This record gives sequence, structure tokens and C-alpha cells, in this order.
Amino acid sequence: MLFKNISLVDENFNIKKNMNLVTVDEVITYIGSEVPQEYNGEVYDGNNKVILPGFYNTHCHIPMTLLRGYGEGLPLQRWLFEKVFPFEARLSGEDCYWGTMHGAIELIKSGVASFTDMYFFIEDIIRAVEESGLKGNISHGSTFNPDIPDFYDLKAYQDPYRLLKIYNTKASGRIKIDASLHAEYTSNEAFVRQVAEFAKENNLIIHTHVSETLKEHEECKQRHGLTPFAYLNKCGLLDQPVVAAHCVWIEGEDFDIMKEKNVTSVHNISSNMKLGSGFAPIREMLDKGIRVGLGTDGASSNNNLNFMEEIHLASIINKGVNRDPEFLQPSQILRMATENGAISQGRFDAGKIRVGYKADLIVIDMDKPHLQPVFDVLANLVYSAQSEDICLSMIDGKLVYKDGEVLNIDVERTVFESNRIKDRILSEI
Amino acid sequence: MLFKNISLVDENFNIKKNMNLVTVDEVITYIGSEVPQEYNGEVYDGNNKVILPGFYNTHCHIPMTLLRGYGEGLPLQRWLFEKVFPFEARLSGEDCYWGTMHGAIELIKSGVASFTDMYFFIEDIIRAVEESGLKGNISHGSTFNPDIPDFYDLKAYQDPYRLLKIYNTKASGRIKIDASLHAEYTSNEAFVRQVAEFAKENNLIIHTHVSETLKEHEECKQRHGLTPFAYLNKCGLLDQPVVAAHCVWIEGEDFDIMKEKNVTSVHNISSNMKLGSGFAPIREMLDKGIRVGLGTDGASSNNNLNFMEEIHLASIINKGVNRDPEFLQPSQILRMATENGAISQGRFDAGKIRVGYKADLIVIDMDKPHLQPVFDVLANLVYSAQSEDICLSMIDGKLVYKDGEVLNIDVERTVFESNRIKDRILSEI
Repeated sequence: MLFKNISLVDENFNIKKNMNLVTVDEVITYIGSEVPQEYNGEVYDGNNKVILPGFYNTHCHIPMTLLRGYGEGLPLQRWLFEKVFPFEARLSGEDCYWGTMHGAIELIKSGVASFTDMYFFIEDIIRAVEESGLKGNISHGSTFNPDIPDFYDLKAYQDPYRLLKIYNTKASGRIKIDASLHAEYTSNEAFVRQVAEFAKENNLIIHTHVSETLKEHEECKQRHGLTPFAYLNKCGLLDQPVVAAHCVWIEGEDFDIMKEKNVTSVHNISSNMKLGSGFAPIREMLDKGIRVGLGTDGASSNNNLNFMEEIHLASIINKGVNRDPEFLQPSQILRMATENGAISQGRFDAGKIRVGYKADLIVIDMDKPHLQPVFDVLANLVYSAQSEDICLSMIDGKLVYKDGEVLNIDVERTVFESNRIKDRILSEI
Repeated sequence: MLFKNISLVDENFNIKKNMNLVTVDEVITYIGSEVPQEYNGEVYDGNNKVILPGFYNTHCHIPMTLLRGYGEGLPLQRWLFEKVFPFEARLSGEDCYWGTMHGAIELIKSGVASFTDMYFFIEDIIRAVEESGLKGNISHGSTFNPDIPDFYDLKAYQDPYRLLKIYNTKASGRIKIDASLHAEYTSNEAFVRQVAEFAKENNLIIHTHVSETLKEHEECKQRHGLTPFAYLNKCGLLDQPVVAAHCVWIEGEDFDIMKEKNVTSVHNISSNMKLGSGFAPIREMLDKGIRVGLGTDGASSNNNLNFMEEIHLASIINKGVNRDPEFLQPSQILRMATENGAISQGRFDAGKIRVGYKADLIVIDMDKPHLQPVFDVLANLVYSAQSEDICLSMIDGKLVYKDGEVLNIDVERTVFESNRIKDRILSEI
């Protein structure tokens, strides 16, 4: 496809006007101010439009879209144990397929090209992701602690290894399998070491939750005499690339460990606000040179998968927390949403607009009243734009969304199935 | 109009399914589960739809829509003195008319029925508000301090009095004139007393800014030996109903003064985050029984006038600040957005769905993937919904918005004029 005469957010987050961009198969093959002469393919008119890299959502539990708004208004522990866990215990693989499809609609409509996920029934999740056109780093949320009945799950350990062999080379690399440790507090030390070893043997990224709540952070220190990061490091878990969700309560040497081990910290601002978890120390992480990505978390603690909203919220709330309107400029937050996310997923040829890179591209229609006038394109994208302003999304060179239509998903059927699942499970509980 | 077979958010914020609601002229005349037999007017099918009161935006500078994204990334003082003030000095009344029209598009599309505004050229603002179908409490931002050249503005005092006589009974009460004191730091004591006296004589609501930044709060204490609220109270300003924007840095006896004087505190969460002003102590205000409304502030510090976003952000950020997911339930935040705002504007027969009340109504289309499944309607409205999900808005019984169309505003022309104004002013600066 040729995107003709379009404004382009380049890899340094500068706006280049009246540019032309060509994609062939999966990749970007040309970027320039001249219209290529020899081009015979489809042409997209870029008038009043801005093209930028698709977004990389670095922490999600996509089937939890089925639980949106379930058990609202309860304290955290009652919400989990009285609502979420009993509901999840009744989910089938087919349910998770539809939950993934449902979540994929929102991810695609809000500009996400690829997401890092942790849940169960991941073969069904992968099937849905493949059909949707999204890319994903999928993992089975592994919990194992024989002392806690809820977390005695042998399948957690076996599943990824089996799936790894099946999927890791499929779907043009769109689907990748990550190793996963759900969290320090849902595992014992032997299991953490086992996951670390498994990831090393298979050269996998590890997806985990770290220091989301003060309670878990402090209890880890009591259990192990170490912060969660120090403990995970001791167990060898950080020897592979780690994507660590939340990182709200990290302190002291945690920053050094994260930097030294090249950990990606995922900022889940909506979830952290909605659940009252607290404010992650983003400024300190950035000052330390730690890579930060953005994540929606699951829809049951957000309560949507609207990635544009995540960009907006992370941007302004961190200015508020730091009482500094100059902190986190639009270019910085967009780098987190694109390049940092791609790197965290091991997708080193994606996340920016560059010749030879994967054609993960979104187009924003600036011809909306709330995006005018335009003094500053990036400011309007970060502070004023909505997901609805995205008019096209392409992943690995294939269109997945255009002018309101999610091209690979039967939206009506998907929502119908979600409601059927909801009704069935509610009738069982 | 008859809204037939619709889910309705009642005045206690309970959801009533399969209801029917009739409006005649400006008011709601019937609410009930039976379809009225004698009805011959227009019928709206409420299938999969929720009807709720329109929103009351309690702090705005609507013509600043023209400055959206202007001077981004600068520190606050440089932004104001190098960018905002020089731009504003070049605005004409006609410019403010178009800026108001532009802002009105966003307010209407995000469900606002009425807004409290402070700016200048208010005759032009009023003209635009009348044409748009919105309601507004409009005031001229009065500044007067002969010691500070920027704030020597005699017109500030004279304008409202003159306009009061012209407008206060016009447009079926849609337009009201408020008195205004811009702020403590842009006036001297004699002027504060003058505004207080003027408001008392004419029985006006007073719109002002209080304790937005720590700097202004502390400087007031140094100047007067009193917090801004204590000082304004001493000057008699709080003897009339006051709408106080921001209230971020209030402390100690300020809470008692606000409660005793029945002040409405406006929570401008987006603006407070974006400008790094800080977190207003909403929990303490609510515990004290102080009325809190929500406000967008102007688009130049937000950077939009999307009221649904304001509801969402205020809701989740205050949970985050208080580290309490149970704080600020959807019913509480919706009460702030509707009933509290209406009371703050002296519109005592509006802000809730009740027979005899003004027909300020919005309809949300729940048949959107990101609003499904529905376990909890209010949670989905507050945490998941977007302004785009509003499919109808009625103000004082008249349709102003339906299915994407802003009925009383030429959107294309308005955006064109905003850009013309932008280009002209940039060429002069």
C-alpha cells in the first residue's frame, strides 16, 4: 500500500509533512517526500491524516474482557476470592477464545499492533489472536506453591513448553510464547528457579507481576528478607529478558537491579488507579535509564482495553504526581507506547517507522473538531485524541481495521457469545 | 418526545429497566413502566439504550478551545506570559464567538447540558451559547489590581452589571450571568469587596479560582496572613453562593469555611494533572459534606472539553490517590456530574430525572463492544464508556445532538473559522 501525502511521526518523534510511505508484504519499503514512480498498488490518500507506529500493549489478560464490571465496589480480596476466581474457574477454552476475540476488538480499535498477555487456555487465546490479525506474546500465568491449594497447578509448568514447540515458528512470527511466573506471592522458590531455568533453556522472555501492591511487596520482604526484585534476581529469573507488570512499590536497590538486568517495567496506570494500588515511580525509573512500556492490564480492572486512553492517562497523571507540567513530553510517552513495547516483546524490527521495519501502522484522522486547531500534532495526539480518531490500522503489512470496521472479527457474533458465556456462568454460580 | 422501553438512571442512581419517559416543551412530564396511552408525539426506541441526566460542567473557559495545544512543554509561567497572554490580547469578540462555538461542539458531544464559564467578550460567548442550544452560567473574569499593570481592567467590573440587565431573563433562563472574581492573586482587597457587594446587590452566584497552585496559596498567606478561602470570607465574597474552581491546596479551617458558606468546589482533575498543580483533597471535602462538582477547565490546559473523560479520570484517580478501590462509587461521581453541578448553577429544577424537572437528557448506546458484557450499567458508564457512545442529547427538552450530528452548529464552518483565527494571530505575534 502507498500512503500518499501524509504527515508522518518519524523515529525521533518529529512530524514530517507531505510524506509518502510504501509497504510491501510485511514491511515498510519506502519513506520519502517524492511519490514513487513505479508504484502500481493500492493508494491511501493521507490528506489531513497522520501516520504513526502501531502501539505495543505490554501487559494484558485479554480473556478477562468477559468479566468487565463484574464484582464492582468490593474490596480487593473479596472481589478476587468471591467474584473473579469462581467466575474464572468456570471458564472453558472456548470461552477464552471468545473473550480474546472480544478484547481484540478493543485493542485493534485503539491502535494496538501487539500485546503481551498472561492467562490460561492459551491455545484458544492464540487461535483467536491469529484470526484477529493481532500479534501477541502469549503466556500461561504460572502459579505453583504446594502450601497454598489455590496455587497448586502443575499444568502451569507443562503448558508453555508444549506450546512452544507448536507455535513459536507459526503465523510469520506474529505469535510468540513467553515464559511466565504469575508472581512471587503465588509461587515458591523452587518453582521460580524452575521457570528461570525453563526460560533460559528455551531462550524465552519472562512475563511476571512485581510489587503491584504494598501488601505483597512488604510480605515478600517478610518471607524472604528481600524485595520481590531482589528475590527474583537471587532465583535467576532476571537472567532472561523480563517484562515486569506494575512495579508500583519498588524501592532502593530495585532500580539498580532492573537497570542492570535490562528489565522492562510495565506502567499500568488505569489499573493501578482503579484498584487503588498506588503510583509507580516512573520518573525515578526513567532517570535510571530503565525501559518503561505501557499496559492496559485486563478489562476487569481497567475497565476497558483502550490503549489511547492509557497513553493519555499515563502522560497527565505522571505530570500531576511530579507536580511538573514539563515531565513526560508527548514524544517520551509515545516512545513507551511503541518502540519500548516492541523491544520488550523481542520484536526488534518493529515499533518505529523505518524502511525494513514491520509495517505496524495506524492512521489518525485530524479532521475532527476536538483535534483542531493544530499547533502541535503530538500534543493533540496524546492529550486530545480518542481511539475513535484512528481510521486505519495495519499489522505486519495487513489491514486489520478501517473506518470503523474491524476486518477480521465478526463483532456482533463475538459480543453475542460473550453475553452467552456471562449468562451461563452467572447461572452456575 | 417519548423515550420508549429504555433503561433509566433514576435520581438515586439506580437503574430502572423498560421505562418510558415523556418530555413536553422544556420539562419531563412522565416517567413510568407503562407506555402512556394518549401520546401522539415523536417516539424514540430505547432498546439497548440508557437514559441519564445531562452533565453540568462547573468550570470552563470555553473560547480557549482556540488555544488547544499552544505553547506545550513550557513551564507554567513562561506558557502563560510568553504564549497565552499575548495570544489572548489579540482575540476579538468575533474570535471568542467562534471559540465558543468550537468548544460547544465538544461539550455537546460529551453530554454537557450546561456549563459555568469565565472569560471575556461575554456578549459574544452568550450569542454562541444561545445558538448552540447549551445552557451556561457566563461570567467575565474580573481582575483588578492597580499595582499590577496586567490586572488593571475596569471593564471587568462594569461588564457584568450591564449584561445582567440585558440577558438574565432571556433565552428561557438558559443563559445566566454570574459575578466573577478571577482570583485572589489578580485583585486587591477593595476589588474583592466590590465584587462581593455587586453580587449581593444583584443576587448573583460568584465564580472564582481558589488555591489552584501551592505558590498562589502560600503567597496569599504571606500577603494577608490568611489562606485564600479565609481571606475571601473576610472580604464577604462567600456570603453569596460561590463556585470555586480547583481547591487543590485548601487546608485546615478552609474545609469548615467551605461547608459553612455552602461553597461548591470544582474538581478539575485533567487540568490539575496536566499542569502539575496537584491532587485536590476530594475525600476530605466529601467527608465534610462539601458539594463537589466536576469541570473541564479550558481546552488549553486539558486539552479537550470531553466531559465523559473528566468523569472517568476523577473517578479512578481519586481511588488511586486514596489507595482505596471502594472510594468514589459510580453513583457518587455521577451525582457530582449532574445534580451537584445543577445546584451550583442555581438550576434547582434540573440535574436529575424527575417529573417537572428540566428535560436535560442524554442517551447512551450500550450496544458497543467496549460496553459489553453488562454486569453493572453504572460501572460501564463511568469506567468503560466514551463520549462517542452518546447517541442523543436533549437540553431543556430540545434535541441538540443525535447520532453524530450536532444539530445547531455548522461544525465544518466553525473549525474553519478557528483555523483562520489561529493563522491570523500567529502571523501577528
